[in-house]
Amino acid sequence: MAQDEELTVCPVRWAGDGLELIDQTRLPGELRRVLIDEVDALVEAIRTLMVRGAPALGVAGAFGVAIAVRQGAREGWDRAATLAAVERIRRARPTAVNLARGVERAAARLDGGLDAVLAEAEAVRREDLAANRRLSELGADWLLARVGHDRPLRLLTHCNAGALATAGWGTALGVVRELHRRGRVELVYVDETRPLLQGTRLTAWELAREGIAHVVQVDGAAASTILYQGVDAAVVGADRIAANGDTANKIGTLGVALACAHAGVPFLVAAPSTTVDSDTPDGSAIPIELRAPDEVTDPAVVRADPKSVGFNPAFDVTPGTLVSALATELGVAEVARGELPGTLWPAP
Amino acid sequence: MAQDEELTVCPVRWAGDGLELIDQTRLPGELRRVLIDEVDALVEAIRTLMVRGAPALGVAGAFGVAIAVRQGAREGWDRAATLAAVERIRRARPTAVNLARGVERAAARLDGGLDAVLAEAEAVRREDLAANRRLSELGADWLLARVGHDRPLRLLTHCNAGALATAGWGTALGVVRELHRRGRVELVYVDETRPLLQGTRLTAWELAREGIAHVVQVDGAAASTILYQGVDAAVVGADRIAANGDTANKIGTLGVALACAHAGVPFLVAAPSTTVDSDTPDGSAIPIELRAPDEVTDPAVVRADPKSVGFNPAFDVTPGTLVSALATELGVAEVARGELPGTLWPAP
Repeated sequence: MAQDEELTVCPVRWAGDGLELIDQTRLPGELRRVLIDEVDALVEAIRTLMVRGAPALGVAGAFGVAIAVRQGAREGWDRAATLAAVERIRRARPTAVNLARGVERAAARLDGGLDAVLAEAEAVRREDLAANRRLSELGADWLLARVGHDRPLRLLTHCNAGALATAGWGTALGVVRELHRRGRVELVYVDETRPLLQGTRLTAWELAREGIAHVVQVDGAAASTILYQGVDAAVVGADRIAANGDTANKIGTLGVALACAHAGVPFLVAAPSTTVDSDTPDGSAIPIELRAPDEVTDPAVVRADPKSVGFNPAFDVTPGTLVSALATELGVAEVARGELPGTLWPAP
Repeated sequence: MAQDEELTVCPVRWAGDGLELIDQTRLPGELRRVLIDEVDALVEAIRTLMVRGAPALGVAGAFGVAIAVRQGAREGWDRAATLAAVERIRRARPTAVNLARGVERAAARLDGGLDAVLAEAEAVRREDLAANRRLSELGADWLLARVGHDRPLRLLTHCNAGALATAGWGTALGVVRELHRRGRVELVYVDETRPLLQGTRLTAWELAREGIAHVVQVDGAAASTILYQGVDAAVVGADRIAANGDTANKIGTLGVALACAHAGVPFLVAAPSTTVDSDTPDGSAIPIELRAPDEVTDPAVVRADPKSVGFNPAFDVTPGTLVSALATELGVAEVARGELPGTLWPAP
């Protein structure tokens, strides 16, 4: 299909005898595909982020039901065993609503047998691709109208909401790609996205493949870059959007949004409508996954794509208007209230 | 001296035949002291962050003048050569004003010979210790008055502004230590502080030695922790404070300040008065050091102190009020203006 041929990366696809995934934990060093044909292996692949990104999890979850059906047939499971296996896939990670939705759509076709389940999973995949393309156009249109100038944009993104995170096109990076197609991307600041460095490993890799100019920066640089480096907008994906618009996304996204609000530049969330969860009234009802502490305390060695360059300012500047108080040995100045150090004591 | 005996860590001290530094690049794995007796070695130690932290750099810079005097005597330098060596120390890193100030104070005593220079450098060190102790008390007093309750505090800090960053007590961590002494610390959230992980390597190590409860988190978690984990205040150090209160500190500090402002909790900067630079009118005049890009793209392997625990939420929630727009395949909702997805199109 023409749409598929345009894909540069296809992270999740059915391969006849199982689900073929790109092992995203190996990128950018190695582009390795693995075939998953057992439920335990799929759950492990989801938990270890071999496959990740809310829309890609939706697709993987839907095909996971087919894996359960095939394994059940091989191993003689009864319906209860199959349903239990499906449920384990559905709960493999808690935050992204798409995983549960993809599983549920395919599971609703269990009575039709493997072919019906596979057809539904394939529909989930194709619909995600089509939604990605459309939301990328809509997001690009909106952003260009909002920025109101005709120069190429300086953009910032966090984590990876690209082809690897979806059926193969991208949400936030889909918008970036669409803007690039229109000649409107000057530079993308890529947050490295600790602890697992999806920005360094995946987003920079995708942008390098596409020839889109980018630099990788530490997550702590995001606020300073947005305020002082002329960023026109931040574009991010989402794992779940509550009915009131509260948006769960990779840790660190909130700080990007705060900086955009302070700088007065747009903070655009790009996501398929399936990421909106009307059953979740607001952000406080979104379960936030707590992962293993040693992902933080035992960092892995990860090198960026050799075509990616680091942007590495060692410091940033906090406006005095944000400094509640400055404590020195000569006294405390409440700077945000207008007490300047020089007015409280003589300069040294 | 009694004050010195209380120090748990003495990162910079004169050892008779040179300057003894703790090699902070080796922590937390190894507590190794190195003796520096040549100017080139000191400049390299400053650039590689073997010694770092604005107040500690002031002390190291002052003793560096003594190193230059001794090396000049050994190698027969004329006055111009000595002054050139002193200038190289002064410029080894650009952002922290304390380095230049420490060098300048000791260099002003060059005419008095080595003893006069050493006496001045020792004065810089002792004054920094005394200032640290005093500003820690003042900062703790201010913070307790401001929070207005009598429970132990949940604090957040970024980078390392502890004993290792000063003559041996600490600025931001000095305040934390003073609060701990008063029984008023419940938990310290330590930002790991990429790229060089001063939080993981140094702050967590200091807190573990002091028995102060803490967790290490990725820098991207700071905003979410401040908004949703009941943080009472953030306390950070500073490398240079402009006359208007704009404050340069380790990259990532600005994001902490924005989150504090949004959460309505105090953002306290703790620094000796020597960090205030009246000659710098505002933050735009502070030179920001750009370090090697491969510090970002080639992360080193660093393990935290074994007594430190990671806090590892995988996601955060951005309030809809901060979402400029949500682009989906069904349309774009300007959420911050009150357009909720569910009002623009039917729920799936």
